[in-house]
Amino acid sequence: MSNKIYLDHVSTTKPHKEVLDTYTKLLEKYYYNSDALYDDGVAVYRLQEEARAKIANMLNVRSDEIIFTSGASEANSMAIKGICLNSKERKHIITSIYEHSSVYNAIRQMEDKLGFEVTYLYPDDQGVIKPEKVKEALRSDTLLVSIMHVNNEIGSINDVESIAEIVKKHSGTYFHVDMTQSLGKIAINLDNIDMASFSAHKIHGLKGSGFLYKRNYIEIAPLISGGQQEFKIRGGTSNACTNIVLAKTVRMALDEMVSSAKKIKELKDYCLEELAKIDEVTINSPKNAIYNIINISTNVKSEVMMNAFNLKGIMVSSKSTCGSRENEPSRVLLSIGVDDNNAIRISFDNTNTIQEIDEFIKILKGNIKKYGRD
Amino acid sequence: MSNKIYLDHVSTTKPHKEVLDTYTKLLEKYYYNSDALYDDGVAVYRLQEEARAKIANMLNVRSDEIIFTSGASEANSMAIKGICLNSKERKHIITSIYEHSSVYNAIRQMEDKLGFEVTYLYPDDQGVIKPEKVKEALRSDTLLVSIMHVNNEIGSINDVESIAEIVKKHSGTYFHVDMTQSLGKIAINLDNIDMASFSAHKIHGLKGSGFLYKRNYIEIAPLISGGQQEFKIRGGTSNACTNIVLAKTVRMALDEMVSSAKKIKELKDYCLEELAKIDEVTINSPKNAIYNIINISTNVKSEVMMNAFNLKGIMVSSKSTCGSRENEPSRVLLSIGVDDNNAIRISFDNTNTIQEIDEFIKILKGNIKKYGRD
Repeated sequence: MSNKIYLDHVSTTKPHKEVLDTYTKLLEKYYYNSDALYDDGVAVYRLQEEARAKIANMLNVRSDEIIFTSGASEANSMAIKGICLNSKERKHIITSIYEHSSVYNAIRQMEDKLGFEVTYLYPDDQGVIKPEKVKEALRSDTLLVSIMHVNNEIGSINDVESIAEIVKKHSGTYFHVDMTQSLGKIAINLDNIDMASFSAHKIHGLKGSGFLYKRNYIEIAPLISGGQQEFKIRGGTSNACTNIVLAKTVRMALDEMVSSAKKIKELKDYCLEELAKIDEVTINSPKNAIYNIINISTNVKSEVMMNAFNLKGIMVSSKSTCGSRENEPSRVLLSIGVDDNNAIRISFDNTNTIQEIDEFIKILKGNIKKYGRD
Repeated sequence: MSNKIYLDHVSTTKPHKEVLDTYTKLLEKYYYNSDALYDDGVAVYRLQEEARAKIANMLNVRSDEIIFTSGASEANSMAIKGICLNSKERKHIITSIYEHSSVYNAIRQMEDKLGFEVTYLYPDDQGVIKPEKVKEALRSDTLLVSIMHVNNEIGSINDVESIAEIVKKHSGTYFHVDMTQSLGKIAINLDNIDMASFSAHKIHGLKGSGFLYKRNYIEIAPLISGGQQEFKIRGGTSNACTNIVLAKTVRMALDEMVSSAKKIKELKDYCLEELAKIDEVTINSPKNAIYNIINISTNVKSEVMMNAFNLKGIMVSSKSTCGSRENEPSRVLLSIGVDDNNAIRISFDNTNTIQEIDEFIKILKGNIKKYGRD
């Protein structure tokens, strides 16, 4: 597989060697139940709580504001359903039309099953949800605003700090942010944000791992019911070794963020230059999109293009991998007016090289020549 | 730690070496997103679907009836909340008072938040929920019956096959069984059961791993919303390597069940004989309890006794580890009329030895002598 080129880092990433090594060592030794009261259980508990404190510290929040989950989809569902289940009076939610399926479908469920009213905001021509739109949509019965930080398909970046300022002034309304694609990529400021979701496997960590940041005074109903674990709001025997190694994963992502960003920006700029030379290519990602994602359309159907790339050992995707097998057009692309089925998403990491971009461009040109329709 | 004695196998188990070895090898290679459409993604997907088919085959059900989860607590919450959220007319649940906290608290949430009425059945003097009691409690609006197979604190075994026969005849009512403590211990027959929950770490597998069996025609609302994963009812990027190795975990548990049971029964019988010689010991577990659990009371407070055992390197628990830090008395023990705070749960595995039981008995006697009140 050494000759293959992986350009799908937004879908998932290869775990860091240091993360895997630490994890496998932990697994052999620290299998005791972290809630057991004997020494070997307490040792696991302490390591897990140290990891929680480290993560909290890196994000400038309190330890009791970090809740370990099985991933960002769980964190998103937990935040949204947990707060909705607890709300008797307020029955209005504001979100965007282009959220990740775990947010979008969780909110749809609240609409269908629990009688919530939902305002779906549309992005502007730069793929951004304007803070003013959130302000206009706020109602006296608005319980929750949920707007993602970085869009996973087109890479647009929302000004969640300004949205947070607006929501903060609106008493009784909470602001949740899906930060799956921003952690380790751009700066995160949780100061005025009430809840935020994070994933490990998007930043070279383990699958089945993530966390919810939730201000400690906000009460949510548990999604996964159970015992005393995770401040009584997330049941199940702690996946302690996974949670312990998550601190290292987050630290590595933050440590290498600046240098990694510099390298990836160069790759993206070079790729954009080369793409600009191909007549059949349209860039779907907005100008100010995040540096690791480019979404393009060509004159070749997405599935044909992906298959052609696959035959040459190049891995790209068309839309969110969570919807890869669905035939419907991308909700994200439709929201910014792209209504073709010819989109391809390329996403980089600091392990990619200029040579790989050259190879990608070469194959892309070949695919267009071979499969493109005039 | 080699001189320590682990008698808390119901809380969690040490992962099998074969499971860990396979898992760590998988992690290095199969990190691609199992929903990605290129070859390396499809390879992960296929391995995961093979594992699903193997588990289904071992339990004599269909592949599309196995849904991977982050553990049994998630599976329990998913089954209960998923079916309740989808129900418009039926608003009655039957359960037992001594279910695991993940079932009990999920049902309490449905009662508090979604207006369900709940009938809590009490065990008889043998710690068993009588099938007749379920029959009597059924109403025209009963949506769900949820009764555990083996109780995790006292080890009583419920006749879930007879309960299934009763529920089956009651059209529109579903039967869910928490089988966390029975898989790999006693025979399981899912023929007339609609949903059942399973955990990996109780059978020498990984934490953060489990599955829900759900008859394929039953529709439940997703607990963790998201994309197309797990038949669209459990979102989030698949924890594929964990799911893949779960097939091996289940196979090993079933393969060694008979020989393991024989050995553990001998340990338990020997332990019971020795316990019978100690005046201060009362056996709380019923006569027909499962062979790997003994619950006793002494004249020493649980926490004092556990601490004294801990100092001697013996690991036991008082009640469910999920409630280990709570001060309230055990709901399970109260349900069978044990209202002291002096209970200890001992749970065996086939790695325990007669010598370890001797050591346990010796220390127990010493603790009673030192800390016992007349």
